[in-house]
Amino acid sequence: MTTIHCYDVFELRLQGPQSGNPYRDVTLHAIFRLGNQTRRITGFYDGADEYVIRFMAPSIGQWSYITMSNNNQLDGHQGEFDVINARDGIHGPVRVNQRFHFAHDDGTPYYPFGTTCYAWAHQPEEIQEQTLETLAKTDFNKIRMSIFPKDYPFNTNEALFPMFMPKTDGSMDFNRPNSEAFRHLEKQIIRLGELGIQADLILFHPYDRWGYATMTEEQNLAYVTYVAARFSAFHNVWWALANEYDFMLDTIPMRTWDQFCHLLEENDPNQHLRSIHNGEQSMNFDHRKPWISHVCIQNWDVKRTQEWLNLYGKPVINDEMEYEGNIWPCWGNITGQEHVHRFWITVLRGGYGGHGETYTDPDDQIWWAKGGKLHGDSWPRIGFLHNLLKQEGIQGLKPINPEFTFPWDRISGAIDLDEKVRFIYFGEHQPTQWMTGLPIDNDNYDVDLIDTWEMTITPAQKIASFVPHPIRHGKITRGGKAEAAFAVKMPGKPYMALRIRPVNKEN
Amino acid sequence: MTTIHCYDVFELRLQGPQSGNPYRDVTLHAIFRLGNQTRRITGFYDGADEYVIRFMAPSIGQWSYITMSNNNQLDGHQGEFDVINARDGIHGPVRVNQRFHFAHDDGTPYYPFGTTCYAWAHQPEEIQEQTLETLAKTDFNKIRMSIFPKDYPFNTNEALFPMFMPKTDGSMDFNRPNSEAFRHLEKQIIRLGELGIQADLILFHPYDRWGYATMTEEQNLAYVTYVAARFSAFHNVWWALANEYDFMLDTIPMRTWDQFCHLLEENDPNQHLRSIHNGEQSMNFDHRKPWISHVCIQNWDVKRTQEWLNLYGKPVINDEMEYEGNIWPCWGNITGQEHVHRFWITVLRGGYGGHGETYTDPDDQIWWAKGGKLHGDSWPRIGFLHNLLKQEGIQGLKPINPEFTFPWDRISGAIDLDEKVRFIYFGEHQPTQWMTGLPIDNDNYDVDLIDTWEMTITPAQKIASFVPHPIRHGKITRGGKAEAAFAVKMPGKPYMALRIRPVNKEN
Repeated sequence: MTTIHCYDVFELRLQGPQSGNPYRDVTLHAIFRLGNQTRRITGFYDGADEYVIRFMAPSIGQWSYITMSNNNQLDGHQGEFDVINARDGIHGPVRVNQRFHFAHDDGTPYYPFGTTCYAWAHQPEEIQEQTLETLAKTDFNKIRMSIFPKDYPFNTNEALFPMFMPKTDGSMDFNRPNSEAFRHLEKQIIRLGELGIQADLILFHPYDRWGYATMTEEQNLAYVTYVAARFSAFHNVWWALANEYDFMLDTIPMRTWDQFCHLLEENDPNQHLRSIHNGEQSMNFDHRKPWISHVCIQNWDVKRTQEWLNLYGKPVINDEMEYEGNIWPCWGNITGQEHVHRFWITVLRGGYGGHGETYTDPDDQIWWAKGGKLHGDSWPRIGFLHNLLKQEGIQGLKPINPEFTFPWDRISGAIDLDEKVRFIYFGEHQPTQWMTGLPIDNDNYDVDLIDTWEMTITPAQKIASFVPHPIRHGKITRGGKAEAAFAVKMPGKPYMALRIRPVNKEN
Repeated sequence: MTTIHCYDVFELRLQGPQSGNPYRDVTLHAIFRLGNQTRRITGFYDGADEYVIRFMAPSIGQWSYITMSNNNQLDGHQGEFDVINARDGIHGPVRVNQRFHFAHDDGTPYYPFGTTCYAWAHQPEEIQEQTLETLAKTDFNKIRMSIFPKDYPFNTNEALFPMFMPKTDGSMDFNRPNSEAFRHLEKQIIRLGELGIQADLILFHPYDRWGYATMTEEQNLAYVTYVAARFSAFHNVWWALANEYDFMLDTIPMRTWDQFCHLLEENDPNQHLRSIHNGEQSMNFDHRKPWISHVCIQNWDVKRTQEWLNLYGKPVINDEMEYEGNIWPCWGNITGQEHVHRFWITVLRGGYGGHGETYTDPDDQIWWAKGGKLHGDSWPRIGFLHNLLKQEGIQGLKPINPEFTFPWDRISGAIDLDEKVRFIYFGEHQPTQWMTGLPIDNDNYDVDLIDTWEMTITPAQKIASFVPHPIRHGKITRGGKAEAAFAVKMPGKPYMALRIRPVNKEN
């Protein structure tokens, strides 16, 4: 009997008809069962005479299946297979955890630290290899990537594959997906998975010269169903409904975006994360809708992260806080230091950020769209922040002061959900001493000074707590007591942070 | 006959009663007349047997006056005097100009570039001399300063004078102003005027241990009338009703702030500018009230300047965008570079900023409260920006794109009200070329590259305008035309700006 690991793919290939349009004419499903647990899976046509059912094993045990189809060749196939423990390092799909955070299906915390290479999987093969090599060196664990190729400034080259089959006149038949193209894409999704990287798959975007952005509604709906059937068995898939949906409202109206989500709910048995990304800062989607799993946002004003957390009540990933680079569009020319700064602010206000790099290149070989190599300063420093969280193994960070009253509107401070580890980030602020937000119980804490740019961690010098001179007529702040059990000497320079942990904490 | 210059002070001193409480018991006014123009002036008691009427001559010609009082000694005094042209460099009180900007009474444009020394006039005399020497070296033309002394962290020393007379038990009698203290203050206001500096006089603030912040409502109202009578004849006075009024609502309710403004309307014949400053960012006063001349705001999120301009429809001065320094409170420890950056953003979005400096000092000699010397990096660079505006002699700057749509929400661009001179500030953005917002008619413009930190101005290299690859399916931006007549090569580093002026412009 076949044996697979939990979270890996059980694939059933069946022979069926080639006549007509198999993509549309043939229905194929399977019921998978383990005890009382059942999953209904949508199959897809993979070209020639091949039909495929893909199933991600969600739990160990002996699973059985039976197929159902409107075609006799495909109907009634049955079988059994064993699911054993997941392979080392495979933790299953990422879910929302503790309302504002994420964890893998097996409970392992997951902190999204993603990058952006919209059309990397549409570049020449050797560039794609280079992209994967580069990713392997970084600490990025998510990549925003488009299923369709991209036509845009700096993105004028032809794509590796058309995503649909040619008609006899050479134009694309948007009713017939190109299996070769999708097979290539899923190969790359799988390779990302082996690197521990989530594939945040963008289903639609406006930057197009081939017709992908102007398919009919029927074609769009069939496409969403197809990618759900084809890709949802991969543990590392996320659904990003759009890049900049608001620039496509002329061809895809608002109600249809909801409908896409419902099709994913129906056809993705693993309920991978679903998000939708805005273009204009004022055009956030209504992320409160229950079929949106988390807030994907484009906004440079990162100190407002808590506004979005409060408004939507879901995890926030600010995937476009502007990118490090020097190209002429203003979303792609901030300094590396500013990008790192915005990451720290975002994460220490309870959100997550997304990286991008857009340095001019004579061949328009720019990471943000095409992948290849990284040239900037921000990526290792973003990885440094990522590793700080990983070292603690925390569930997530929440604001030290959830009201964000002074000074927490100006600087950023967070404590993990179990209220053990604190981080305070000062950014453009450069005090020579600090006390607010430090523990009040006793001074039995290790405090480290973190230079977020130099990526150094050194023990901070504790100094006596102090009671500031009163600042209100007739009112003594905190009853004349110091607001923390100790204070810390600070270097009086920008981009510093503090980490505060109980002494003897096991790390 | 006495002759005075326009905008200078005509002062009439009269002998009157000393018994009872002359501050409260005696009323004294005078009518000043030139042709059909009349001004009714409130007098004040100056101690001993002296009563004073002060009149700022608003226009040239032969003025006459007559006094009115409930005391016979003071009633019915008459006289005449000549008012001749203003002295060189004296342009009269600052008024709101062109809705969002300022100009002196004689029409000379005024761009507020102020600093903050709350209690400088309450420090030892030698420090006050040092403050005036320092101010003379800077390009600041406004200073926020408090009439009352300050009690606060870093401000624990005793004030030079009590502002009210002692009672027999040694405590202050808040019904009797201390003429010596007010005479000192007005001496310093006059000296500021000679330096071309507006005295933005703060009437109330909460940071007090002497009782100024907890006077009765009757005492507060009498005090406002007194300072109006005493100071309003000085051309360089502004009324700042409060520093952080929202931290005083327990002792001065909202309606009373309005009443203070009405008393100033009644007793200040020159209608000097009136503003009121918030503490918490969420606690902006309702600056739409007609007795508020301009918006005084405390807010670090300076890219939102246009929100406040649109909301209140008045000039915006962001007097606390945080200060350069390294003290522990977070409003006083940003880098000099960040302070300069926030000034450029504010000014190039149509507002004005305020400077402050808060570096730790072993003797707590900190500019922001006590004056003395400046130690930071921002003040000369803020002066550099001020001089750029002065050189052009413009009425003010308005946004190049009043909608602040992309990219103007991210970078800052302004053109003067006559639409001649443009400035674009890139801040944390570092493009290698730029075109948006440059002139569309022809390339007959001088373009200068400004390094806002190095304070250098060098001719920028013009390059051919370009038509970006289309970025929307089926939509050609600007009909396929370049969005400006030329583009500019940029150095790909942060904190740069551009100045664009028509060739042959007289400067």
